[in-house]
Amino acid sequence: MIDKRKIQEILEEYDPKELTIATVCSHSSLQIFHGARQEGFKTLGICLGRPPKFYDAFPLAKPDSFLSLDSYGAILDESDRLIEENAIVVPHGSLVEYLGTEKFERLPVPTFGNRRCLAWESDREMERDWLLKAGIDLPMRFATPEEIDRPVIVKYHGAKGGKGFFISKSKGEYLSKVDSSQRHTIQEFILGTRYYIHYFYSPIRSTGYALSKGTLEMLGIDRRVESNADEIFRIGSMDELEAAGIFPSFVVTGNIPLVLRESLLPKAFELGERVVEASLDLFGGMIGPFCLETIVTDDLKFKVFEISARIVAGTNVFIGGSPYSDLIEKDLSNGRRIAQEISLARDQRRLLEIIS
Amino acid sequence: MIDKRKIQEILEEYDPKELTIATVCSHSSLQIFHGARQEGFKTLGICLGRPPKFYDAFPLAKPDSFLSLDSYGAILDESDRLIEENAIVVPHGSLVEYLGTEKFERLPVPTFGNRRCLAWESDREMERDWLLKAGIDLPMRFATPEEIDRPVIVKYHGAKGGKGFFISKSKGEYLSKVDSSQRHTIQEFILGTRYYIHYFYSPIRSTGYALSKGTLEMLGIDRRVESNADEIFRIGSMDELEAAGIFPSFVVTGNIPLVLRESLLPKAFELGERVVEASLDLFGGMIGPFCLETIVTDDLKFKVFEISARIVAGTNVFIGGSPYSDLIEKDLSNGRRIAQEISLARDQRRLLEIIS
Amino acid sequence: MIDKRKIQEILEEYDPKELTIATVCSHSSLQIFHGARQEGFKTLGICLGRPPKFYDAFPLAKPDSFLSLDSYGAILDESDRLIEENAIVVPHGSLVEYLGTEKFERLPVPTFGNRRCLAWESDREMERDWLLKAGIDLPMRFATPEEIDRPVIVKYHGAKGGKGFFISKSKGEYLSKVDSSQRHTIQEFILGTRYYIHYFYSPIRSTGYALSKGTLEMLGIDRRVESNADEIFRIGSMDELEAAGIFPSFVVTGNIPLVLRESLLPKAFELGERVVEASLDLFGGMIGPFCLETIVTDDLKFKVFEISARIVAGTNVFIGGSPYSDLIEKDLSNGRRIAQEISLARDQRRLLEIIS
Repeated sequence: MIDKRKIQEILEEYDPKELTIATVCSHSSLQIFHGARQEGFKTLGICLGRPPKFYDAFPLAKPDSFLSLDSYGAILDESDRLIEENAIVVPHGSLVEYLGTEKFERLPVPTFGNRRCLAWESDREMERDWLLKAGIDLPMRFATPEEIDRPVIVKYHGAKGGKGFFISKSKGEYLSKVDSSQRHTIQEFILGTRYYIHYFYSPIRSTGYALSKGTLEMLGIDRRVESNADEIFRIGSMDELEAAGIFPSFVVTGNIPLVLRESLLPKAFELGERVVEASLDLFGGMIGPFCLETIVTDDLKFKVFEISARIVAGTNVFIGGSPYSDLIEKDLSNGRRIAQEISLARDQRRLLEIIS
Repeated sequence: MIDKRKIQEILEEYDPKELTIATVCSHSSLQIFHGARQEGFKTLGICLGRPPKFYDAFPLAKPDSFLSLDSYGAILDESDRLIEENAIVVPHGSLVEYLGTEKFERLPVPTFGNRRCLAWESDREMERDWLLKAGIDLPMRFATPEEIDRPVIVKYHGAKGGKGFFISKSKGEYLSKVDSSQRHTIQEFILGTRYYIHYFYSPIRSTGYALSKGTLEMLGIDRRVESNADEIFRIGSMDELEAAGIFPSFVVTGNIPLVLRESLLPKAFELGERVVEASLDLFGGMIGPFCLETIVTDDLKFKVFEISARIVAGTNVFIGGSPYSDLIEKDLSNGRRIAQEISLARDQRRLLEIIS
Repeated sequence: MIDKRKIQEILEEYDPKELTIATVCSHSSLQIFHGARQEGFKTLGICLGRPPKFYDAFPLAKPDSFLSLDSYGAILDESDRLIEENAIVVPHGSLVEYLGTEKFERLPVPTFGNRRCLAWESDREMERDWLLKAGIDLPMRFATPEEIDRPVIVKYHGAKGGKGFFISKSKGEYLSKVDSSQRHTIQEFILGTRYYIHYFYSPIRSTGYALSKGTLEMLGIDRRVESNADEIFRIGSMDELEAAGIFPSFVVTGNIPLVLRESLLPKAFELGERVVEASLDLFGGMIGPFCLETIVTDDLKFKVFEISARIVAGTNVFIGGSPYSDLIEKDLSNGRRIAQEISLARDQRRLLEIIS
């Protein structure tokens, strides 16, 4: 992990009136650049080879300049260029995936948020400890097949995008399906409807839902569209499909907007509050956008099956504002909210509280 | 039912420049408060115990003040406080549920809309009579199992949120599933896609789709997200699930936005027109927002399976405007439309026409 | 086909400051009229009999005047009236369907876009040739049942709205279901999630994603809601339903908004680019809005199963702007974009390049 004092030194050399918001050209970059421009920042896109042409179609989101790399690893050699631009790098899921955890952690350039949360988020066991410490209701895990007494979802370790995951309604079904030569987790399959809730935790903004330190906001909710699981029912049920040699997969291809029953909002905020408070205790806090991936059961309880400790792609459905963010400020995307946070921290000379 | 002359007397004492829009802190309260503020009204939130903290996260929707109760029933003792604030109470589904029909009907405070519609809406038989009188196409009902000749949905009386409802594709399946010791209705299960259409009937606005008295608008359409029925297909079909002891439930957890094929709009307005006209005949009219819960079949016909005679939670997806309300006025939510109606009635000294 | 010189002569007589945007009162007319008004055009609605009353409910989209016909065929006799109004007719799916291909092609009134694309779009074989020439990945077609080695969807020729289409998971299932007395196509059923991508090709605008001639934009994405296929899973799987004599149908009743994983945008633009370039070679170009109807598989590849060479009804979800069009200009619907194109062409005296 890069030493925070090193980041502090770099920040002290930055011209606060000339900050540039930089990110990798994928995932949620359109709204990050758009939001940065709305708040008056310069923008820089990090890409492989030639700048992606698709930005030409979105003039309000096209970055002012590009840093073209031969490989994402080469970003470590280009940190001077980023520093010259007074760049603050905004991480998103693809940025972290492309660079790799290790390279991202030691990137000698100021990044938005707390890089220490990465270890907690990317390791399933640490993530589970964090959520349990926060007192969050999680799906059960079964150590052995003998314990299976309800529907389960079986997740092979290291499987990309949910490929190979399968669902069993009973122990017998599990035994007939599992490839026991592969490491896997047997997780309770929660019956209900999925809500991916987009939160924003600010250690410095004074308005919002008050926490022990700073405030919490909720900017929107999406549901992931998973290929092929979301449409496979159109040709048959799981059993019929298996008989035909067809299996479900859970690769995210996009997102749809939705809202939550308003009477569930107090609980939703409580969940957000708990994971932030636990993160403050565990590693100094998860700063900025995060997402709780929840299932709401038919007795109106939340089960949380995952946490993302940075901007999620589901926020892309709300580039022009959501039914929730519209109640904070019109046209407030997650990308714009990030830019506002950087702007506020700069003006209050508190950048170091939101940068690592 | 509170005497309308009593309400009239209270209204006459109100300072029309100081009206307060009040509602219970749940359901669709964010947009009701937000819309009221957009139109320049003061706002008051009615809650149990301490004011809900989540409003702090939505500064544009936070009520100016709160009336904290020990129980919702206690609102009857607090009517003076509401009257002091020149309050007009906007009812929504949760408000009516929490207070109970009887207490809501005799609440001695001006409420938006016609309280007489409550009896017609909350009793399944009266609701059915109303819709039939309006010439609306409803799902069939089967008096005895012998008549079942198509898929049916079986609804136990008094079941909350659709719990225990079940679907049968045939008479045999019905007989094997039903708990005949419980009172229930056997209703035709309509195959098609669900559209929950949000209308607004104004007895006083002159623009809009003209009715015999007043005008009709359409502000949006949502589809309810039902837990677990909407996602249960991901693990199997009904028969497979039942074999595993898993049953569908129909508890509303949220909403998604959608639009209707434009060629169906004339029919959609005709449906709205008919239920309003019938309501004018039956009980003096259903004023303000209402929702028809429809299924569009594959021969492009509407079947209406329910009516909600007040603001529905599905309108929450359109707090910032819908594809339909954008054609009336930008940023027009249902909550704002309610505030506009109160504002217009006040300015025209016609409050009594929209208040009961 | 009307001679382009005839259209040129008519256009030369038009008063460019008094152009009227006209279309048939259905499909996507609300946004076409609304967008035309936003850009300062007069508007005219073409309808059967009395003007539809539903426009009264949408004052920002109500056309300035109507042309009432006894039958859509009669429009050919009313072309003088349209020409008097300096009308440019914007075609949409319903307009073409109601008039019929042949009458639309010889309508002696300027129409937006290139009428020559109609032949290519409305004939399944020519459409397939066009897409193959563009190097687009299509679902396979099976000439004989013997070749069936995966799930297929069987489409009877001339079937309206997908009625009678059926899905088979194997050759055996196909044989047991097919009515071989009817002409039909056996198409590979692609497992994945559907995205209907709304593009706009401008031969004259200089901003946007550059093509060999003109630029490409992407204005939004929807998913069609199909009755009853989208909700039939709620009562059972295909096999269970068939046993009960219930069959799926694929009639479009509406649309929901969604977004695509951002890393797929480069591919999405490449698809759009290819079909436009091929159209330029084949018939002088497909001008204005078009839609690719795609499925994204779980290995994140696009399969295109249809092209619509004009505005699609799915754009109705974005009358107030989409997460994509918001990055071009706030409040930019497809209807408004069409009006902007006409406005720009007029100002540059290049109307003939976008009119036929």
